[in-house]
Amino acid sequence: MTLDLGGASSYNGLGSKEVFCHWLSHVKLSRIIVLVSLVLIIVPLITHYYLSKVESNVPNGDVHRTRSKLEAFEDFSTLKASDLKLRIEEMLRIKGSVSAELRDLEAKRQRLQLEVVGFTQRIDELKLELIHQQTELERLKISVEQAQVAQREALQRNTPDLALPRRLLPSSAPEKFLPQKRTESHSCRMYNCFDYSRCSLTSGFPVFLYDPDHYPVVAPGWEIEGFVKTTLKQTLGYNPHFTSDPKVACIYLVLIGEALTVPRRQNTQINSTKVPAKTLQEKLLHNLPYWGGDGRNHVLLNFARSSSIHDSRDTSTGGRDIFLGVDTGRAILIQSTFMRATFRHSFDVVTPPILGPPGGDIWQDCPSMLPARRRYLLSFQGEFRYSSNLATTKEATVKNLVQTVDNVDDADLNEDREDYIAESKRKTGVSDADDDVDRFIMEHLQGMAYGSTSDRFLFHFECSLSVSLPNTEETFKKLNTGDWLPNARKVPDSWGEWALCGTESSRTNVLKDSTFALVMAPKNISVVSTTVVQIRVYEAIRAGAIPVLLGGDRLEMAYGEVVDWHRAALFLPKARITEMHFFLRSISDSDLLSLRRQGRLIWERYCSSVQSVVDTVVAVLRDRLAIPPLPIQDEPSPSVFNSTFTPLRTEAVVSETEPEESLGPIEPPYPSPSYKRNYTVFLTQGHEMWNDWGDPFRLYPQLPFDVLLPSDAKFVGSGMGFRPIGRGAGGAGKEFSENLGGNNPREQFTIVMLTYEREQVLINSLSRLYGLPYLNKVVVIWNSPKPPLEDLRWPDIGVPVHVVKASRNSLNNRFLPYDAIETEAVLSVDDDTHLRHHEIVFGFRVWREQRDRVVGFPGRFHAWDLNNGGWLYNSNYSCELSMVLTGAAFFHKYYMYLYSYWLPQAVRDKVDEYMNCEDIAMNFLISHITRKPPVKVTSRWTFRCPGCPVSLSEDDTHFQERHKCIKFFTQVFGYTPLLNTQFRADSILFKTRIPHDKQKCFKFI
Amino acid sequence: MTLDLGGASSYNGLGSKEVFCHWLSHVKLSRIIVLVSLVLIIVPLITHYYLSKVESNVPNGDVHRTRSKLEAFEDFSTLKASDLKLRIEEMLRIKGSVSAELRDLEAKRQRLQLEVVGFTQRIDELKLELIHQQTELERLKISVEQAQVAQREALQRNTPDLALPRRLLPSSAPEKFLPQKRTESHSCRMYNCFDYSRCSLTSGFPVFLYDPDHYPVVAPGWEIEGFVKTTLKQTLGYNPHFTSDPKVACIYLVLIGEALTVPRRQNTQINSTKVPAKTLQEKLLHNLPYWGGDGRNHVLLNFARSSSIHDSRDTSTGGRDIFLGVDTGRAILIQSTFMRATFRHSFDVVTPPILGPPGGDIWQDCPSMLPARRRYLLSFQGEFRYSSNLATTKEATVKNLVQTVDNVDDADLNEDREDYIAESKRKTGVSDADDDVDRFIMEHLQGMAYGSTSDRFLFHFECSLSVSLPNTEETFKKLNTGDWLPNARKVPDSWGEWALCGTESSRTNVLKDSTFALVMAPKNISVVSTTVVQIRVYEAIRAGAIPVLLGGDRLEMAYGEVVDWHRAALFLPKARITEMHFFLRSISDSDLLSLRRQGRLIWERYCSSVQSVVDTVVAVLRDRLAIPPLPIQDEPSPSVFNSTFTPLRTEAVVSETEPEESLGPIEPPYPSPSYKRNYTVFLTQGHEMWNDWGDPFRLYPQLPFDVLLPSDAKFVGSGMGFRPIGRGAGGAGKEFSENLGGNNPREQFTIVMLTYEREQVLINSLSRLYGLPYLNKVVVIWNSPKPPLEDLRWPDIGVPVHVVKASRNSLNNRFLPYDAIETEAVLSVDDDTHLRHHEIVFGFRVWREQRDRVVGFPGRFHAWDLNNGGWLYNSNYSCELSMVLTGAAFFHKYYMYLYSYWLPQAVRDKVDEYMNCEDIAMNFLISHITRKPPVKVTSRWTFRCPGCPVSLSEDDTHFQERHKCIKFFTQVFGYTPLLNTQFRADSILFKTRIPHDKQKCFKFI
Repeated sequence: MTLDLGGASSYNGLGSKEVFCHWLSHVKLSRIIVLVSLVLIIVPLITHYYLSKVESNVPNGDVHRTRSKLEAFEDFSTLKASDLKLRIEEMLRIKGSVSAELRDLEAKRQRLQLEVVGFTQRIDELKLELIHQQTELERLKISVEQAQVAQREALQRNTPDLALPRRLLPSSAPEKFLPQKRTESHSCRMYNCFDYSRCSLTSGFPVFLYDPDHYPVVAPGWEIEGFVKTTLKQTLGYNPHFTSDPKVACIYLVLIGEALTVPRRQNTQINSTKVPAKTLQEKLLHNLPYWGGDGRNHVLLNFARSSSIHDSRDTSTGGRDIFLGVDTGRAILIQSTFMRATFRHSFDVVTPPILGPPGGDIWQDCPSMLPARRRYLLSFQGEFRYSSNLATTKEATVKNLVQTVDNVDDADLNEDREDYIAESKRKTGVSDADDDVDRFIMEHLQGMAYGSTSDRFLFHFECSLSVSLPNTEETFKKLNTGDWLPNARKVPDSWGEWALCGTESSRTNVLKDSTFALVMAPKNISVVSTTVVQIRVYEAIRAGAIPVLLGGDRLEMAYGEVVDWHRAALFLPKARITEMHFFLRSISDSDLLSLRRQGRLIWERYCSSVQSVVDTVVAVLRDRLAIPPLPIQDEPSPSVFNSTFTPLRTEAVVSETEPEESLGPIEPPYPSPSYKRNYTVFLTQGHEMWNDWGDPFRLYPQLPFDVLLPSDAKFVGSGMGFRPIGRGAGGAGKEFSENLGGNNPREQFTIVMLTYEREQVLINSLSRLYGLPYLNKVVVIWNSPKPPLEDLRWPDIGVPVHVVKASRNSLNNRFLPYDAIETEAVLSVDDDTHLRHHEIVFGFRVWREQRDRVVGFPGRFHAWDLNNGGWLYNSNYSCELSMVLTGAAFFHKYYMYLYSYWLPQAVRDKVDEYMNCEDIAMNFLISHITRKPPVKVTSRWTFRCPGCPVSLSEDDTHFQERHKCIKFFTQVFGYTPLLNTQFRADSILFKTRIPHDKQKCFKFI
Repeated sequence: MTLDLGGASSYNGLGSKEVFCHWLSHVKLSRIIVLVSLVLIIVPLITHYYLSKVESNVPNGDVHRTRSKLEAFEDFSTLKASDLKLRIEEMLRIKGSVSAELRDLEAKRQRLQLEVVGFTQRIDELKLELIHQQTELERLKISVEQAQVAQREALQRNTPDLALPRRLLPSSAPEKFLPQKRTESHSCRMYNCFDYSRCSLTSGFPVFLYDPDHYPVVAPGWEIEGFVKTTLKQTLGYNPHFTSDPKVACIYLVLIGEALTVPRRQNTQINSTKVPAKTLQEKLLHNLPYWGGDGRNHVLLNFARSSSIHDSRDTSTGGRDIFLGVDTGRAILIQSTFMRATFRHSFDVVTPPILGPPGGDIWQDCPSMLPARRRYLLSFQGEFRYSSNLATTKEATVKNLVQTVDNVDDADLNEDREDYIAESKRKTGVSDADDDVDRFIMEHLQGMAYGSTSDRFLFHFECSLSVSLPNTEETFKKLNTGDWLPNARKVPDSWGEWALCGTESSRTNVLKDSTFALVMAPKNISVVSTTVVQIRVYEAIRAGAIPVLLGGDRLEMAYGEVVDWHRAALFLPKARITEMHFFLRSISDSDLLSLRRQGRLIWERYCSSVQSVVDTVVAVLRDRLAIPPLPIQDEPSPSVFNSTFTPLRTEAVVSETEPEESLGPIEPPYPSPSYKRNYTVFLTQGHEMWNDWGDPFRLYPQLPFDVLLPSDAKFVGSGMGFRPIGRGAGGAGKEFSENLGGNNPREQFTIVMLTYEREQVLINSLSRLYGLPYLNKVVVIWNSPKPPLEDLRWPDIGVPVHVVKASRNSLNNRFLPYDAIETEAVLSVDDDTHLRHHEIVFGFRVWREQRDRVVGFPGRFHAWDLNNGGWLYNSNYSCELSMVLTGAAFFHKYYMYLYSYWLPQAVRDKVDEYMNCEDIAMNFLISHITRKPPVKVTSRWTFRCPGCPVSLSEDDTHFQERHKCIKFFTQVFGYTPLLNTQFRADSILFKTRIPHDKQKCFKFI
């Protein structure tokens, strides 16, 4: 009676339970009901028919048949008893043997079943093993291939690897030459006045300083300011080029008397003794022990500390240049003041005045760069003095000429003035035309200020006006000894210079309110640089006022041969004064902020402190000689283990979670080639080194900005190290995973893992790295003061694991440029970060294309606080990111140097204070250098990180600190360098529908 | 009998069909069988029992009962006939009314049913409409908000939009001033010798040329070479700054006699007439009509065409400078030869010699940049001549000094030589030291060449050696008139110059084989530039040999104030000769190729043809005056319709395939602000303009390299135009789609669609653009000569559709910078490309972050031909791409200018020849400029493009052409600029698991 169902099942022609169920669940209920009803109706009727028939037959035959059966049974009893017993025994025996047999069979069956289970298990194991082995084999094959390529390369290479060159130093002090003719020093240039033989390319540019205490080179009655003497010795001592051995030195620095501190009481004394200042100084110079007759390779440093340095008393010559008339031989002059006739282009160096502290953080001195537009569009404060000897009234008249030019009709006074002006001009060399120009400029500026414009200006052509500024209450710093004050005009101005007004702080207050700061070139066109001009520029860029150099086309700017001032200041010939307002108005906010930012960059790097000025002076001369800087120092990475202790080892367990996918060859560690561009980076990328990226004072093993080879070069002779995909034919899947491809030669990365007292978490993380391709080394930073347990078993993951003993527990250790890190690429991870191998490999590939950026996994952003203003840290889901956390991110080792040695100390201190925010700081730094946002890689659905900031961020304190960090770092940088990004990098065929016979780039990402 | 089944169903307590099915499909088959069997057994038995019972009762009672019923029926017949009739009639009536009622009911039912169906339909429609309206409302809301923001901005903005400034021109020719004192011209600089009043910032820098035929300024017996005269007039005519009106001119160009062509037959004539050459020339100068007494704003052009130009006959002055001793007043001198004493830094300009054709493509002259290393590491061919009057034997001795220095022991000859050398030195001003240096250099080079090194060198210090080179069979071009040949040494060399050897082609052949080319500065240190040095550099960079300027520290390079030669050549002081080999060896392949590439860039842009030299000279002077270049010309975009014809319109059908997702506000067209940085781009980014990106000769409305505003600036005063996401708070989903965010202000893009005789395809494509946010305009390029059908209905898609009539059917039209394109972003699509709105919007957002790159959808790559070498075009699935097809890609309008006006004509010709490859050319161009790969956006699974290269590529001819294109373009560029990329840009939350209450960035991508 189950036939019907069987029939229904076999109707499908398959007969399997699944198919039936499938059919069952799809057949309409109504049909089932109809069918079943039909069956239920028909079957009973048929049954009834048959049963009725049977019943009608039974009474006769069937009943009889049953009866006869019973009778046959009872026949047994008629058998004999003995037979019966025998039969029973036989049957019992049979029964016994049968049951025994059955038991045996059952046991056998069970044994066999067990065996079968066992075999099946083993087969499964073997299958798994087989797959694993196949993958391993694939990997090995790739690795072997790669090794072979590497070996071929090693054989073929005809250039030896460059190492840091040995220093090649001279062995004796300079010989004495006959002094050259005095006139020749005017035509001094490097090729005719510099002795290159003391400065080989590999010498490392040793710099010797004559101790200013032992060899004072000063004019009589002058002395070198204590501050300058001390700080110069100190800061030069920090400079890596400094040497105390004059025999090996390339250049010899001589500190020249700083005039500022000349005690006024000595003035009379000098006048009475009548010793001509210059000759004495000259003799002191020429007696220097290594002067060598002509002072070649000597550098005379004359650091200005204020504007009054050049108030020379020797008015007859009209010169305020301390070296005027002095025979400086072949020495290079470095100061802020130069006359056109004495300045030797690309030989002498113009420096900014030394107004800053000896060293240390200087960001506090700078106001915020924002807003772009400030109260005044343009400001100027200055006073022009014709002479000190005339009555103040007359002078005032001249000065007030602009304001009162119509009112001056006193012919007498006028005549007097004219006479005076003519006289002063005769003496000073300022021509009529020059004077006219400056008068016209003043008039024009006044017209601008009171003209019909919405822009605000602040112009003071008399210092007394500036003194009445709101901020004069502040204590005047005595940098300007007061001779600029309205009542103390004692010094004749032979250069037609606009003197400074007010104090440093009063001027800075005005500059902080000014978008642009006017700097006027002195009237005298034979001046190429004056301390006052340099101070004006210095103060302007520090305060974020963009210097507008009127007459700037005739000035020499500080470090002009390396610093591109056009990106930080505006230069206009005086003739364009009428176009200046139009010009300034035409500058957009983004250009304005870029000028301001560049000004601050120049100020911070090259002007701000004594250290920066000294370093820059040394670097400018070094750069001129094309000698590379000294290499940056790596941080030593002491092992956390004693040299005698060998940590216990364990086989790494192959991670179950890693897909059986070959991601790349397993190769022996291959450190990134370093110092390959020692002699070219400053030649070909010098402009960027000085004006864009970080640090021009040191040589770095590699830069994220290194130039790319054309894509065909790797097939035409320059293939060394390149691993093109499919040998150049491209491809996906296997071909892709076999080779790195890209635009750079093969390389590996280092994992840097910060850990603190979570040994098992660390060990688990390490184990997971087994078999990770392109991994060069794991550097574990052991932040805990307690060394690891001696019985801790360290997994053997195929690459070295270097456990560095940190000197103290600091998050800044994460970014220390340890010497154990031998690759350009650094993958920074938290000890509990769980990244899959394919994610890491893909991230590495993306980083290789974006070497100057942070490339990583967890994205965050800075959000504007709509209620209170300012930035907030935000970790919500967002489609716009501006940070990638360094708990799982790749970056270039170069940024570790910058973070540790170049970033203001305040940033690292804040990180230590909160034990937080180091990742934010790193993002600030890199965006500041590159002006690019970070790159987020792959979706985060496999990014599990139980202890990392994702969960930490639920902690409110943590969040509050991070808000504060962003605000604080913004103060330090002067703006928020973070930039937004709205996309994520995925592998090219991710979630792409491709034919079945094609392979993707990665199985899951 | 269905009770059992019902019971089974109700057993679940739910009774719904689904539950039953669920139960059915989950209950075990065995149970069903048992149950059904049970039912089938029990039911028949029970049936049988009851039926048997019934049967046994029926014979008596039941039969009787049926019979009695029949009898009752027959009772009717006993009724009266009349009654019956009535009854029947009644019943018929009733029946009639009932049927009528039934019919009515049926009709009513049907009507109602219809109504119900109708209502359901309408409800569905309304629901759809509602959703649509809601989305529209959302969009509208966003749009309104955006419009409000825009309106607020419009009210708040305090700076008017900058337009192209009106030209401000002088109205009269220069007045006549008193001539200045002759000595003053030595100290001429821009601030004291240039009249800015003729050159306002808005003047556009008009340049006037004295017709060399009407105003010949030549020395007697000299004449200006016809070639120079003609081509200068012609090429300057092409320069947009050229003006024929001397009254408005800023500068006045004077072509000075080219000395090369002085006919030798006239020599005697001059000697006999004894007219002093210089005075005549001076008079000609001073008589120029606009000389104005002092020649201010005059520019004297002295173009060299060969090295012999300076073989002046006036040996007594030792000068070969054509201007030596001539009073040039305040004029600017432009030539290849300068003495240190006469060269006025940042006033005079050094030019390369004019050796190229008047204009046109010049890439054929350059060999491939690859391989990086060539046969010779370094080569030099030159000859040093002391005098022409001494016997050739002696001279030869001197020349052979290096090779034979040990063998020369003939004291007499030696003495003679010494005498001679002393004499010649006295005359020429070459010092002993200089001579020693050059002798040492020669010795050292010889030592290098024959030393134990694997590097090969080619040094010829005698030209006779070079003549025997394998390539001397070639016809000598007579550029060098032969006086350099060994037997024709007639010219005394007062500058200690190394003369050129061989012909241009023989030299070029050597240079093509040289990695580096040595260029030695003349011995005489008072020379800053000579034509020979400039020719050497010119030929070296053309041939891809990197110039090594020994003594380069004392030379002035061509256009030194704008061109950064340090990126293209190596400069070494002569003192470093001993380190040169080490230095050259230390240069890596990538640096080497970057130097070579930059050299070629400088050569192509600034030196290669007369046009480029003339344009560069004008641009250098313009740049110095800080006047922006003239704006680049847009291509006019004539409409394909007559002005009288109004094309038919149709409502755009809302595309069914577009998801109902608000992707951004629909705003009125908003062209990108243009010419905002006229006065700043060359000031702040001038270095990059001249040395990196494309074209410094024209002003562009926008650049892809414009600087970014800090992210906080938009909240602190500079928010104009910015649309931060969530007003700065960030976010996903709705907040994200409401605003553009990013680092740039709001903007829109233009779709450029090329079409050819596929009207319906085009119309469909256009219709699909309805409601696309951020779309500014659609520019359809009508490539067919036939105008569109008059009855074609153009869809109204909410933005203007501009149909441009192309002048001819060319794929290059796709990249013409039509003036109708008013946005920076251009989305180039084929007419049959089907991109979804969200893909377009996302692509636009990604492009906004990568404005200098191609950002698009279909990725391709160039694959190395493993069998035959060279590149093949490849469209396979790949994980590494190097091109994005412009059939669906965003790029900056700047590249359309470069493609159309800057790329060599040969590239566009090849595109026309094949009717193919324009997308490859664009990828070459952009990668060449940026040295970056393109960016591929989103997976291509929704990218359907039935007629675009995906399917076209199946056509083998198409493929073959594309292979050839890559090879040809590589020849034109000298290398393959394409670079590889291994990632794709997706939206940040694409395929990310996020909580249900969170929104993604886009629904599907």
